[in-house]
Amino acid sequence: MDHTKYALELAQKARRASRKVASLNTAEKNRALVAMAGELKKSSTEIESANRKDLRAGEKAGLSAALLDRLRVTPDRLRGMAAGLREVANLEDPVGRVIDRRVRPNGLVITRVRDPIGVIGIIYESRPNVTVDAAGLCLKAGNAVILRGGKEAIHSNLALAGILRRAMEDTALPVDALQIVNVVDRAVVGELLKLDQYLDLIIPRGGESLIRAVVENSTIPVIKHYKGICHIYVAASADPEMALKIVDNAKTQRPGVCNAVETLLVDRKIADSFLPDLRARLVGKGVELRGCDQTRAVLSEIKRAVESDWYEEYLDLILSVKVVEGVVEAVDHINNYGSHHSDAIITEDEEEAEFFTRRVDSAAVYVNASTRFTDGGQFGLGAEIGISTDKLHARGPMGLEELTTYKYVVRGEGQIRE
Amino acid sequence: MDHTKYALELAQKARRASRKVASLNTAEKNRALVAMAGELKKSSTEIESANRKDLRAGEKAGLSAALLDRLRVTPDRLRGMAAGLREVANLEDPVGRVIDRRVRPNGLVITRVRDPIGVIGIIYESRPNVTVDAAGLCLKAGNAVILRGGKEAIHSNLALAGILRRAMEDTALPVDALQIVNVVDRAVVGELLKLDQYLDLIIPRGGESLIRAVVENSTIPVIKHYKGICHIYVAASADPEMALKIVDNAKTQRPGVCNAVETLLVDRKIADSFLPDLRARLVGKGVELRGCDQTRAVLSEIKRAVESDWYEEYLDLILSVKVVEGVVEAVDHINNYGSHHSDAIITEDEEEAEFFTRRVDSAAVYVNASTRFTDGGQFGLGAEIGISTDKLHARGPMGLEELTTYKYVVRGEGQIRE
Repeated sequence: MDHTKYALELAQKARRASRKVASLNTAEKNRALVAMAGELKKSSTEIESANRKDLRAGEKAGLSAALLDRLRVTPDRLRGMAAGLREVANLEDPVGRVIDRRVRPNGLVITRVRDPIGVIGIIYESRPNVTVDAAGLCLKAGNAVILRGGKEAIHSNLALAGILRRAMEDTALPVDALQIVNVVDRAVVGELLKLDQYLDLIIPRGGESLIRAVVENSTIPVIKHYKGICHIYVAASADPEMALKIVDNAKTQRPGVCNAVETLLVDRKIADSFLPDLRARLVGKGVELRGCDQTRAVLSEIKRAVESDWYEEYLDLILSVKVVEGVVEAVDHINNYGSHHSDAIITEDEEEAEFFTRRVDSAAVYVNASTRFTDGGQFGLGAEIGISTDKLHARGPMGLEELTTYKYVVRGEGQIRE
Repeated sequence: MDHTKYALELAQKARRASRKVASLNTAEKNRALVAMAGELKKSSTEIESANRKDLRAGEKAGLSAALLDRLRVTPDRLRGMAAGLREVANLEDPVGRVIDRRVRPNGLVITRVRDPIGVIGIIYESRPNVTVDAAGLCLKAGNAVILRGGKEAIHSNLALAGILRRAMEDTALPVDALQIVNVVDRAVVGELLKLDQYLDLIIPRGGESLIRAVVENSTIPVIKHYKGICHIYVAASADPEMALKIVDNAKTQRPGVCNAVETLLVDRKIADSFLPDLRARLVGKGVELRGCDQTRAVLSEIKRAVESDWYEEYLDLILSVKVVEGVVEAVDHINNYGSHHSDAIITEDEEEAEFFTRRVDSAAVYVNASTRFTDGGQFGLGAEIGISTDKLHARGPMGLEELTTYKYVVRGEGQIRE
C-alpha cells in the first residue's frame, strides 16, 4: 500500500474511534486499562520473543551497549509497564471537570469543561515502554493515539501494541483508538504530520534532530522540548553547604537526563571560597569542570570553557562554570544561553529569589532545590507524557490534564443577542 | 535592506523588549495604555490623513464598498480604539496570578504562576482597529507584539503604530515591544514565520486562505479558526417559539460573522409543523432557504441543498436546512461537516441536552441560546484577540488570560532527588 493512503487510513480510523473514546465514562476506561495490564503480564513470552528480534538486529547493526540496554524488555520492565497502566487507571479522570463557571447578566450560564483533545500522535525513539505508557495516558484522557516508535524497536513495539489492542477487544475502548505505524519508512511520518484534519496534537520524544524534523514538517500543533541546558546560580547569600549538595545532586545523580544541571553560575563575591569546595566535592566523583577565565583564576588546572560550552547539553559528568556579577547577569545568561527548561537559584535573600523566579523565562524555576525534580511524578501529576519547554498549552511536565482541552458549554432559556 | 535581515532585526528587538515588558507591574502597564489612548485622541488629524491615502489607493484598486468601509477610520472608530485601550487598562492583570499550589511530601512547594508568553505575532487583514486592539491586549498581558496588517491599510496601520510607539516613549513600556512590519512584500511574513527562536505564538486573523498559508509556513505555534460553520439543532421537544426566535437571531442579526448560523437541523418528528413556521419567519427577512429532500417535501418551493452546502460558510442571508432522525444524527452531522466553532441545540429534554453538549466537538456548545454569543465580551472575558477552533492552549474566545502561559515556581530548603 502506498504511504499516503496508509497514513490517511490510520488517521481516519483514529479520528472515528476518538469520538467513541471521548464519550466513555471513567469506569469504562479504567476497566480497559486494567485489562490491558493483565494481558501484558500474560503475554511475556510473546513480548520477549519479539524483543529478541530487535536486540539481535541491534547487535548486528552495532548499537552501543547503552542503546541495547534501552531497547531491552526485561521481566522487571514488563511488570513496570503493567503497573504503570494500573496507576493510570487510578489517576483522577480530568474529562468532564468544570474548571470555570460564570453567570452573565443576561442569565446565560457559561462553563468551561475539560474535554479530550481528540487524536494524539506520539513519535518516539528507542524505549519500548513508551508504547505502553503513552497509550495508557492518552486513552485515559479520552483520546485516540497514533504511535510511531523507532525502527530499532519495531518488533517489540508492534508486539506490545498488538497485545494492548487484543485486550481492548472485550472492553468499551474501541480497538482503533490505539494505532501503531507498522511501516519503518519515514515517509509515513511525513504524511501523518500533514493530516491536521484528523490529528490534533503531536508529541515528539527523542533527540533534537528528530524533534526539529517534526516541527519543520508538521501542520499539526507540536508540543516538545529540544533539550535541557539547566543552570544553577549560587548567589552570594547562599548557604554554601546547601549549594554544594544541590549542585552535586543535579549533576551526578543521573547525568544523562534533561533536568540535570549543565552550567553553574557563581556570584563573584563568593567565588574564591566556593569554587575550591566545589572542586573538592565533584572532582572525586569524576566530574570534569570547565570554567570561564574568572573561574580559572581560582581553579587554574581546569579546562577553559569556550563560547559553545554555554550552549552545550553535556548529558555527561561535565559541568561548565561561570563567575557572574550578581543575579541580573545570572538571569541574562540563563535566558540567553539556556533552553528554558529548569533553572535554580541558591540564595537566602528573598528579594533576590523573587527577582530570579519572575525573570527567568523557563518552564520550572527553583529556589533552593535541585533541578532534578522537573518530572510529572515528582510534581505530583501522576505519570508524565513528556516535558514541554513551549509556552503554548503546556509548559513543564505534562500529565493527564495536559492531554485534554476544554470546551465552553453555554446554557440559556432562549437568550438571543441584541 | 533584505527581508531576512529585516525580519530578524524586528524579531530580535521584540524578544529583547519582551523581557522588559514581562517584568513590569500592573500600574506601569496601565499608565502606558492610558497614555497611548490619549496620544491617539490627540493625533486624529495625522491618522485621518494617512487613512485617506489608503482609501484613495483602495478606490483606485477597485475595492468593494464593504472593504472600503472596513478600511475607513472615522472619528467615532478612533474614539472606539482609544476607549478600547482604556478598557484593557481596567481589565485584571493575569500575570503573576497563582493558578495552582501543592506541597509535596518532601516539603517542596510547587506553584503554577501565570506568565507572559513572550513575543506574539498578529497577522491580519483590512481593519486598522486591530492594530490598536491587538497591541493593547498583548502588551497588557506582558508580551511584545509584532503586527502585520493588510497592504490596503498600510498607511493607516503605520500611522497608528507610530503614534502608539510615540506615546510609549515616556512610559515604562519599551518602544520596541510594539513592532509593525512596514514592508508590504509577503516574503517578510515568510521569514518571520520561521523565527521560532524569537516568536512564541502567531495569531492570524482573516480569510481562510491567509490562515492556511500561515499554518503551512510557520514553525511557530499558530492559534486560529478557519471559519465558522455553525449549526442549530431543533429537537422534537423544543419550544417552537424559542427555536424560531433563536434561529432568526443567529441567522439575521449579523449574517457576515463567524458565529452566525449556517445550517439548521430539524428533528423529523416536528418537521411538518416547524418548517412552515420557519419559512414564515425568515423569508420575509430576505433569508434564502436551501433544503434536503425531506425539507423540500414540506417546503417544495425552496432550492435543493447539495453536498457542498453542508460545508459552506455563507456569511450571508442563506440557511441550509436538513431533517434528521434525532440527536445522534444531528451530532454526527455537526462533527462531520462543521467547523468546531459554535453549535446549539434547542430542546426541553435535559438528557438530550447533556448528550449534545458532551458529544459535539466544538469550542462552544449551546443549549437554548443563540450561537451569536461566542465572543470575548459576551463571555465576560473583556476584550478578545480572536477565536480559536484549535484544541491546544485556547479554545473559543481568547482574552487576556489566553495571551499568557504559566511557569512552575518551586521553592525548597535544600531538597535533592534521591
